Amino acid sequence: MSRRELHLNINILNSGFYASAWRAPASDPSAFVDVNHYVRNARIAERGKFDAVFLADTPVFAERPEYRPYQALEPTIILATVAAHTRHIGLIGTASTSFNDPYNIARRFATLDLASNGRVGWNIVTTADSAAARNFGLDGVVAHRERYERAAEFADVVVKLWDSWEDGALVGDKATGRFVDIGRVHPIDHEGAHFKVRGPLNVPRSRQGRPVLVQAGGSGDGRDLAARHAEAIFSVARTQEEGIAFAADVRARARSLGRTGPIAFLPGLSTLIGATEEDARRREEELWELFPVEYGLARIAGLLQIDPARLSFDAPLPDDVAPPKDGGHTFSGATIELARREKLTVRQLLHRLGTGTGHRLLVGTPETIADDIEAWFLSGAADGFNLMPDVLPEGLEVFVDHVVPLLQRKGIFRTEYRGETLRDHLGLPRPATGWETASEAVEA
Amino acid sequence: MSRRELHLNINILNSGFYASAWRAPASDPSAFVDVNHYVRNARIAERGKFDAVFLADTPVFAERPEYRPYQALEPTIILATVAAHTRHIGLIGTASTSFNDPYNIARRFATLDLASNGRVGWNIVTTADSAAARNFGLDGVVAHRERYERAAEFADVVVKLWDSWEDGALVGDKATGRFVDIGRVHPIDHEGAHFKVRGPLNVPRSRQGRPVLVQAGGSGDGRDLAARHAEAIFSVARTQEEGIAFAADVRARARSLGRTGPIAFLPGLSTLIGATEEDARRREEELWELFPVEYGLARIAGLLQIDPARLSFDAPLPDDVAPPKDGGHTFSGATIELARREKLTVRQLLHRLGTGTGHRLLVGTPETIADDIEAWFLSGAADGFNLMPDVLPEGLEVFVDHVVPLLQRKGIFRTEYRGETLRDHLGLPRPATGWETASEAVEA
Repeated sequence: MSRRELHLNINILNSGFYASAWRAPASDPSAFVDVNHYVRNARIAERGKFDAVFLADTPVFAERPEYRPYQALEPTIILATVAAHTRHIGLIGTASTSFNDPYNIARRFATLDLASNGRVGWNIVTTADSAAARNFGLDGVVAHRERYERAAEFADVVVKLWDSWEDGALVGDKATGRFVDIGRVHPIDHEGAHFKVRGPLNVPRSRQGRPVLVQAGGSGDGRDLAARHAEAIFSVARTQEEGIAFAADVRARARSLGRTGPIAFLPGLSTLIGATEEDARRREEELWELFPVEYGLARIAGLLQIDPARLSFDAPLPDDVAPPKDGGHTFSGATIELARREKLTVRQLLHRLGTGTGHRLLVGTPETIADDIEAWFLSGAADGFNLMPDVLPEGLEVFVDHVVPLLQRKGIFRTEYRGETLRDHLGLPRPATGWETASEAVEA
Repeated sequence: MSRRELHLNINILNSGFYASAWRAPASDPSAFVDVNHYVRNARIAERGKFDAVFLADTPVFAERPEYRPYQALEPTIILATVAAHTRHIGLIGTASTSFNDPYNIARRFATLDLASNGRVGWNIVTTADSAAARNFGLDGVVAHRERYERAAEFADVVVKLWDSWEDGALVGDKATGRFVDIGRVHPIDHEGAHFKVRGPLNVPRSRQGRPVLVQAGGSGDGRDLAARHAEAIFSVARTQEEGIAFAADVRARARSLGRTGPIAFLPGLSTLIGATEEDARRREEELWELFPVEYGLARIAGLLQIDPARLSFDAPLPDDVAPPKDGGHTFSGATIELARREKLTVRQLLHRLGTGTGHRLLVGTPETIADDIEAWFLSGAADGFNLMPDVLPEGLEVFVDHVVPLLQRKGIFRTEYRGETLRDHLGLPRPATGWETASEAVEA
């Protein structure tokens, strides 16, 4: 087995994870609807030898668009554009299993995988957003368990479609006129509780076989979905203990399902970097100054599913606040725990989260950040990180120019891409289709 | 009103419209799954000042993939790639209203429209293909009328979503921290027979306002859909009389619905060009020699929905063959009529269709082809053409280098792009959202 290696994704959250990033001096407020912004960041990340670009998604007009940008553009279109402007970096896009058909998702990601020469990953989400549900004929969010049952079957169907072509089924022999060997392209004839799909897919496999399956979401159902399908996981871990426990739990669930392949655990990591500690703190205060406090209250209230009127900036969270039992967001529990553990007021909590996503936030110098990443990597709390710089592209540029060289010097991060596909970057094998033996038997 | 001008789209049908195009000496059999093939053709067409690239689509493994390529890659991913490699040419992609959700289609095409700076069109189809239906939980094709009712409502919803943002709703004022003026972004609250969609869309309008609506399909229901929504129509016309009558009929239907804007009629046109007539004929015979006859029988039988065993190469079509009443293909009737009118055997019919799509085929020199195009344009039988060269890219290159200059010399085709958007190319106005007056009233 080859040496373990750190993995880094850049999560291009519009102008940056900090809610006021769009107001920073160098930011373009329209960046969130400009594909060139995504291309620019992807190219910087590729210069830094990152594994992949990561794009989140919710098919809805954002919660509080008065105050800040959000994921507006459809991710696969952005990634196709990024693919055209890059050569190596992986391309991971989110698509919801609640508001799509498996045939369309399988085909679109397979097309993108061919277009990028095997650099694609699909981040599977179920979308716990009732406003999004109302864009798709529903009155609200479907129950958590049912969403995840649908997601598991959805992913099963997508994988079966991706594997419906054997390698070599595309013959294209001009001399004989034989184009496709249809004996090596297999209908899937799937019939389940949620989907009935005949197949086969209409595109052949890519250089990496099929897109990498990525999962985000840490509930019990989410962990089961990850255990069943995920090859990389965008997780939440605020302490090394949390990271270690989460990975152990998902790995145990995967083993119990008979899965043996590798899984990369990539917790979210927000960064705010300065040349000195003082510099970093000053940068943080500048962004905090630009942060609209009304947005902060609304965001915390939305996360916890309570009335914003129940929150006050200079008081702690109300005692009776608890993570919503069903349909809750991945970050609800972690946010409450952080507030309680460190006895934070709402204002301190917002400041501590960097107004951000609920992922861990590191404020510091390139050295402290590289040391922290190394410690997490060596302890097994993370195989790498889904990186969310404060402001884009500048926060990413600083990371690439000043943190990446330190990680390379520590010998834990690549100095050159050694493969072409996302599977190559992540150290994942090219999967078999499951049809190989059948055809060999027929041919024998 | 400005002078009427010819419009040309390049319909990139994998290796070319001729069924054996992939076997031609210069062809790459894998071109149909290679985005670079699409990019290459788009760039040639852009050099020729074409209005747009056009991509057909059916979400299914093709009818006879043993013999020939088909539309495999998902069109919007191809078009995003093409957008990244071109500056002016329009990008028209087909997506089915039977196997998608309006919110997803509205958002994906709006994203592509932003990514390409306003060069996108959506070709609305209902997909009369029972194998495709079986990839989406159905047992077969839904009845013609119902498909078109769904399509009309689907397009209504998509347009409402595209128009849910007023121009100027994206404020992005760093000084005040005001990001989106949500008073100028409107939920659509659509509730109809097929869809319930709250909206608004989550992306602002593009430079051209919204994507151009394109329609293909000539049945009565198809004409009604075109009359209601289409700004450009990919039609079938084998004679000028047919073209003139079709345009008059659709324009009359549009007027009766109160529509006043322009509609561009662009019949399909297959071309097979030689330096001399003899050259063109030789080229035709070479492609015919490479054509697998089994495929031809199967294709005609499929089109007419009859048992292939009922067809014989050297006999005419059976007397009792008639266009299928429901769920039939646009070309069924035209194909039967051609065979009867010219008393063709099945072999002659295939040869005459150039083994192709059922659209009109011109075999000749650049001069005869340019003269033909001019005659159709001047008589009003066509506002332009959806061009399908025999072999790609060579058939397109010959057209661009030898036919386009003749059309320019005749003064009917542009020598430079004069605008940036697809609407500019097609002479279509940038549409209003319908919200303008409301906001002005509120502001007054």
